[in-house]
Amino acid sequence: MATIVFCSVNKTAQAAARRCLSSRLKRLASSGEPGLRLSSTAHGPPVTLLPGTRWFSRGTSVRLMSHGAAGRSAAGRTRRGALVLSGAAAVTAAVAGFLANANHFQRAEMATRVSHAVEEKERERGMLERCREFMSLPVTDINVLQGRKEEMRTRMEVLIMETQAEFCRALEEVDGGTFKVDRWERKEGGGGVSCVMQDGKVFEKAGVNVSVVFGNLTEEAAKQMRSRGKVLKGKDGKLPFCAMGVSSVIHPKNPHIPTVHFNYRYFEIEEEDGSKQWWFGGGTDLTPIYVDKEDAFHFHNTLKDACDKHHSQYYPDFKKWCDRYFYIRHRGETRGIGGIFFDDVDSPSQEEAFSFVKSCAHTVVPCYLPIVYKHLNDPFTDEEKDWQQVRRGRYVEFNLVYDRGVKFGLATPGSRIESILMSLPLTARWEYMHEPAKGTREAEMLEVLRTPKEWV
Amino acid sequence: MATIVFCSVNKTAQAAARRCLSSRLKRLASSGEPGLRLSSTAHGPPVTLLPGTRWFSRGTSVRLMSHGAAGRSAAGRTRRGALVLSGAAAVTAAVAGFLANANHFQRAEMATRVSHAVEEKERERGMLERCREFMSLPVTDINVLQGRKEEMRTRMEVLIMETQAEFCRALEEVDGGTFKVDRWERKEGGGGVSCVMQDGKVFEKAGVNVSVVFGNLTEEAAKQMRSRGKVLKGKDGKLPFCAMGVSSVIHPKNPHIPTVHFNYRYFEIEEEDGSKQWWFGGGTDLTPIYVDKEDAFHFHNTLKDACDKHHSQYYPDFKKWCDRYFYIRHRGETRGIGGIFFDDVDSPSQEEAFSFVKSCAHTVVPCYLPIVYKHLNDPFTDEEKDWQQVRRGRYVEFNLVYDRGVKFGLATPGSRIESILMSLPLTARWEYMHEPAKGTREAEMLEVLRTPKEWV
Repeated sequence: MATIVFCSVNKTAQAAARRCLSSRLKRLASSGEPGLRLSSTAHGPPVTLLPGTRWFSRGTSVRLMSHGAAGRSAAGRTRRGALVLSGAAAVTAAVAGFLANANHFQRAEMATRVSHAVEEKERERGMLERCREFMSLPVTDINVLQGRKEEMRTRMEVLIMETQAEFCRALEEVDGGTFKVDRWERKEGGGGVSCVMQDGKVFEKAGVNVSVVFGNLTEEAAKQMRSRGKVLKGKDGKLPFCAMGVSSVIHPKNPHIPTVHFNYRYFEIEEEDGSKQWWFGGGTDLTPIYVDKEDAFHFHNTLKDACDKHHSQYYPDFKKWCDRYFYIRHRGETRGIGGIFFDDVDSPSQEEAFSFVKSCAHTVVPCYLPIVYKHLNDPFTDEEKDWQQVRRGRYVEFNLVYDRGVKFGLATPGSRIESILMSLPLTARWEYMHEPAKGTREAEMLEVLRTPKEWV
Repeated sequence: MATIVFCSVNKTAQAAARRCLSSRLKRLASSGEPGLRLSSTAHGPPVTLLPGTRWFSRGTSVRLMSHGAAGRSAAGRTRRGALVLSGAAAVTAAVAGFLANANHFQRAEMATRVSHAVEEKERERGMLERCREFMSLPVTDINVLQGRKEEMRTRMEVLIMETQAEFCRALEEVDGGTFKVDRWERKEGGGGVSCVMQDGKVFEKAGVNVSVVFGNLTEEAAKQMRSRGKVLKGKDGKLPFCAMGVSSVIHPKNPHIPTVHFNYRYFEIEEEDGSKQWWFGGGTDLTPIYVDKEDAFHFHNTLKDACDKHHSQYYPDFKKWCDRYFYIRHRGETRGIGGIFFDDVDSPSQEEAFSFVKSCAHTVVPCYLPIVYKHLNDPFTDEEKDWQQVRRGRYVEFNLVYDRGVKFGLATPGSRIESILMSLPLTARWEYMHEPAKGTREAEMLEVLRTPKEWV
């Protein structure tokens, strides 16, 4: 494997200016950083950290671990020095409110419009330049990514790494804390990058996970991976597969800031005759503790806008799917107020399906961050905090009893349990026979969870 | 249905003296209470509260509810006036330490010996007299129980109601708090009595549940109910069944007091030809937060004594079964330090199997209460409390992901969710990558959970 070393390539200012929404951001973003380029010279261990990148600024505190060791090592926080705002951070900062004359939601809408306009330009940028903005080295070696940069699995890996970085920076910006980054390897093939911020100022627990895994599946397992359960024919019963995705659950401290979850994923399975089956899945959904109609409208409307650009049926269909999927059957209530959820998307073309998923992934920050900023300083009572803790308990119930991803992960040997269960809140509560009194805001929330609403 | 009214029958002093271990207890127990007897005179609603009984002393605060309403009504605490110590409470008080010259464990051993000696006498007591000591009216009408008092389902229902009362009183005695008693009905047949004490002085959450349900099972469901999966033949595919049990999980506040769980159950299924399949299941297991070898020895040894009276293989076999069953596979650790667990016990005879289960049920208080008293005033740090919360998170993981009873309950329409999930702690915590440092008491606990030990 070729090893990466660094030199100075000065495209960074241009990269950082991407999606820039204000002169202040431009000023921050244009501060020079040493760039990097690929070299075939072999230096040091196979994974080399690159100065001038986010991962470099974390220095040795980026933890590169084998999967077996990952779950067992002592917890510790990474520290980093001053971090120059990259392109993704610029989006964050923009949403954070540098445009003084717009409210949170207007600013988010502008951020979305501008980000779409620059998408095309991204494709032209070099692989290394894009990787520099990630939270860590990508799972796949950068040389390999560079060598097959037109393939969907490369484009998707870059998208999920970018989405992770963009979202983590948005959250760090508002919290003031720093994500702990664990880059881990899966001995059966592939690995991942888990970013967790725990007990921050704003967030009780924030996890953003990327995984890229590959290997061979049995025909039965391949069938189970797909919700439509297609029968796939493998060579000697085995099917080479590749699965990757970014997933995140954010549990804030303030009960007036909702929990958010998103997940975007891509699968490839190779059949006996060498043909490839592929499909996308994903979704973004919100779990508020109290009903805020303005938040709900903003969240759903932002998702609807992203969907409508691709197909007018996407939002209504995927909104319904979301309500059905995030349903705690034994309680007779949904987990939250939904959003969108889809699986098995393999039409109209791979290009168009990817474009849709990309739109969704780019919508995460503008969907959520304005809501965070809006409620950042909302006062709350002990009773409101208790109600949040009870709802957190329900969140745990859904994730452990029903979530397909969690169940699949826990049942799969070699899974990284800490990454799968990072979706669980830091704290939760189960009160026997808890039932809010009629007419309270808690009862209002329950009513919505028992009868999903149309928000747009 | 005949309705129960009360008159004065003075066998109470004798009943309350049962298992009495000290003169102080005898003095308390002999204080006169009005007795009761059966009458065929119809008075008031089908379920009548009996003065002089525990349920009466709760007066109208015993909640009699239909199953549908049970999960949705506002939480509230029951209050009771001064309660005269009954036979079950006497055991409690004895274990609690009235014998000044013995330590907690010696006193518990004596309590166990004496309680076995009086078992025979219990059979001679009238049904009503025994029911007076329960936490509420039994699930089955007392007249019905009286009419078929020699049948196993009656004897088991009395045993589980007695076990519930004995254990609840032991816990109330040490905590100073009061159990909230919900008597609920299952519209498909049967019902239950759920006793929960939440946020007490000693116990964060203590739940002791009795359920007695009956109806018809499909052949498939009948097969699933039994861990050995026997094929049973029903009339038109349906099998009349009866299932009953007492189950409990106690989560104390002090991290040095372990969590305990027990469950004793009985099943009957009638086949097409009218023959009855029956079997018992159950177990008691301990989940300490820190290793205390003396506690572990006492707990296991008390169980072993109870088992050894019936079969020398019971303890070693059921100890292993317990370690296998309470295993959190995705963590590679057991839930706690085990105890005993068994299922499908249908030999050597129904009488002997019941006798074994009865011994186990009577062992719950002497297994656990001495440990509670021993650690009642142990000081603890914030770090120790945090570790307890992390272990509580693991408890939730086991219960929601693996526990067969919980899974069966959540998947069964008409289940009383609040009773099934009362086993969850009031609070729990999930820390990303939590791993105790080497050489700490937390690491010592983990080591035991990863490699189950022989304690006796």
